[in-house]
Amino acid sequence: MSTSEGANYAPAPMPKPVVEPGEFVFAAMHLDHGHIGGMTQGLIDAGGTCKWVYDPQPERAAAFQEKFPQVQIASSEEQVLGDEQVQLVAAAAIPSDRAPLGIRVMEAGKDYFTDKTPLLTREQLAAAKEATERTGKKYAVYYSERIHVEAAVLAGQLIDRGAIGKVIQVQGMGPHRIGDPSTRPDWFFERARYGGILTDIGSHNFEQMLTFTGSEDAEVLSSSIGNFGNPDHPELDDYGDAHIALSSGATGFVRVDWFTPDGLRTWGDGRTFILGTEGYIELRKYIDVTTDNGGGQVLLVDDRGEHRINATGEVGYPFFGDLILDVLNRTENAMTQAHAFKAVELAIAAQEQARELTGRQG
Amino acid sequence: MSTSEGANYAPAPMPKPVVEPGEFVFAAMHLDHGHIGGMTQGLIDAGGTCKWVYDPQPERAAAFQEKFPQVQIASSEEQVLGDEQVQLVAAAAIPSDRAPLGIRVMEAGKDYFTDKTPLLTREQLAAAKEATERTGKKYAVYYSERIHVEAAVLAGQLIDRGAIGKVIQVQGMGPHRIGDPSTRPDWFFERARYGGILTDIGSHNFEQMLTFTGSEDAEVLSSSIGNFGNPDHPELDDYGDAHIALSSGATGFVRVDWFTPDGLRTWGDGRTFILGTEGYIELRKYIDVTTDNGGGQVLLVDDRGEHRINATGEVGYPFFGDLILDVLNRTENAMTQAHAFKAVELAIAAQEQARELTGRQG
Repeated sequence: MSTSEGANYAPAPMPKPVVEPGEFVFAAMHLDHGHIGGMTQGLIDAGGTCKWVYDPQPERAAAFQEKFPQVQIASSEEQVLGDEQVQLVAAAAIPSDRAPLGIRVMEAGKDYFTDKTPLLTREQLAAAKEATERTGKKYAVYYSERIHVEAAVLAGQLIDRGAIGKVIQVQGMGPHRIGDPSTRPDWFFERARYGGILTDIGSHNFEQMLTFTGSEDAEVLSSSIGNFGNPDHPELDDYGDAHIALSSGATGFVRVDWFTPDGLRTWGDGRTFILGTEGYIELRKYIDVTTDNGGGQVLLVDDRGEHRINATGEVGYPFFGDLILDVLNRTENAMTQAHAFKAVELAIAAQEQARELTGRQG
Repeated sequence: MSTSEGANYAPAPMPKPVVEPGEFVFAAMHLDHGHIGGMTQGLIDAGGTCKWVYDPQPERAAAFQEKFPQVQIASSEEQVLGDEQVQLVAAAAIPSDRAPLGIRVMEAGKDYFTDKTPLLTREQLAAAKEATERTGKKYAVYYSERIHVEAAVLAGQLIDRGAIGKVIQVQGMGPHRIGDPSTRPDWFFERARYGGILTDIGSHNFEQMLTFTGSEDAEVLSSSIGNFGNPDHPELDDYGDAHIALSSGATGFVRVDWFTPDGLRTWGDGRTFILGTEGYIELRKYIDVTTDNGGGQVLLVDDRGEHRINATGEVGYPFFGDLILDVLNRTENAMTQAHAFKAVELAIAAQEQARELTGRQG
């Protein structure tokens, strides 16, 4: 056993701001999901300047301004979209509204950065793709469970260095805590607005499977959904899983659910297992259950031993600086458009063909 | 966080021998897989008397006798089968030979206890079933990854007590070390004799999924196999997985492979994750990787907290005493015949319909 971190296992240097103040100006709007905070912070830490916030509910915009005091509150979406300084609009709208909003943003000549899931249906996907082609703008996605989790960032670096050989399988568990349902907005429980568990929180995992296997495409072999514990909310999937075959030759499996027990010290015991021909990696992203190790645990086993690396504070989040430079230079280093869309296409396919486990009327 | 073991989490009392010496007499034969040692020890620890050993290779029988000195070496299978004292024959033959042997044993009026996988094909399954019905004898199976692993035994006790509510999903990882291929017998690499990875080592996991969900039946939704690292042995599957829907309404997923890295301190980092409506259990069966905790780790998270229980030396293996009593009393407390056959039926179905991931000629 070894818990040392040899040079081969060390993270790449921490990312630094990529622009000077004012060189990259963005706005935040439609704050329906709390992820907007992480999206904004990530861009600010990479050097971005958040000029505007807009939300139809003024109290939400005000709360955002308290967190990010440099921001101005806009009186309308149009005010933001009409500002020529704004290069990108970050948003975390209700999932069913994300594609129409993105198309408006791109048609206004700005890049779009949306919370996952980026959209909900094949029709929205086709429209969003068409709009990116027509406008030349970006429809970037905050797949936070990889790009904003240091353990996952480090896993990507290790795989790229060949630390586990060729990746054969990626397996992800994404349990979430539902908490008090009365504190959730209505859209959380309405299938037409949240999209189903595989489309919504599952999309994170399809993105990770594509990334960690280096695949451009995949096929859903089977999937299932169910409502095992929320009879008062019959349109909620509180369970989902999917088995996929990736174009690299690897397979993937994801399980997502809303059954994090109250006794867990965080919102979910997210795990990722990546099996390679020459080793494997386990990520304990948010907690190392029953220990005080904290999250960010990367366990790597290879021919030389068992290695534990705590990625917390060691890796950072290069996605955000890469995204800013992609906007400025019209490159695709943070994530390609095709990849961002393919992940949600798989999520939609898995949701569409999912077996209903509980005999519920969907 | 809590690592204490309240009464609700404590194991049931350790099993004790269920018979006096000579009350239950068995024999061991066909020692092709090392599991025969564990099978024999388990029965002896439960009070059984091992009278005979037989193997076509005399040196293997002699090595067995060194380990179990009370045993006599038989000169033929017939000598064992003709001994009226022998109530059960334990065997770990080459997988393709297990069903024909079992039928000979049962036709000789004795119960059969075979290493997993118990058989390889639908034809063998039909013949074995017919023989159990015709003879009234048992075709018991050593699904060791549950019945001979204390963490798994304790998990079963916890589930039975309702510790995690209704089980929604069971997910198993069964990585194995292939070691030096030149030390493996020919049959290990021949599909017709070992049966494919899902039929062989996968069968453990189908058995666990049936048990932990309390299901009598299941359907294979999708499965895949591949040979990613052993081109010299084209009939070997070194990877397999399967996604199943169980009759309880739960789902299951299994991944098995021969890619344990040399740096792991044991043969495989076997894990089981059991998700329930009121909590979840993780089993780290053989190692708690990067730690010195040892195997046998049961992690239970419920509404009250995060609990770690080390099952090693605390639970024992009640299967063996139950099996002896089942033989004596013609009961089915250790495992029903239907369950033992259903697990391998699922394994065969998964193998049959598996997608070939690597374009290999199967």
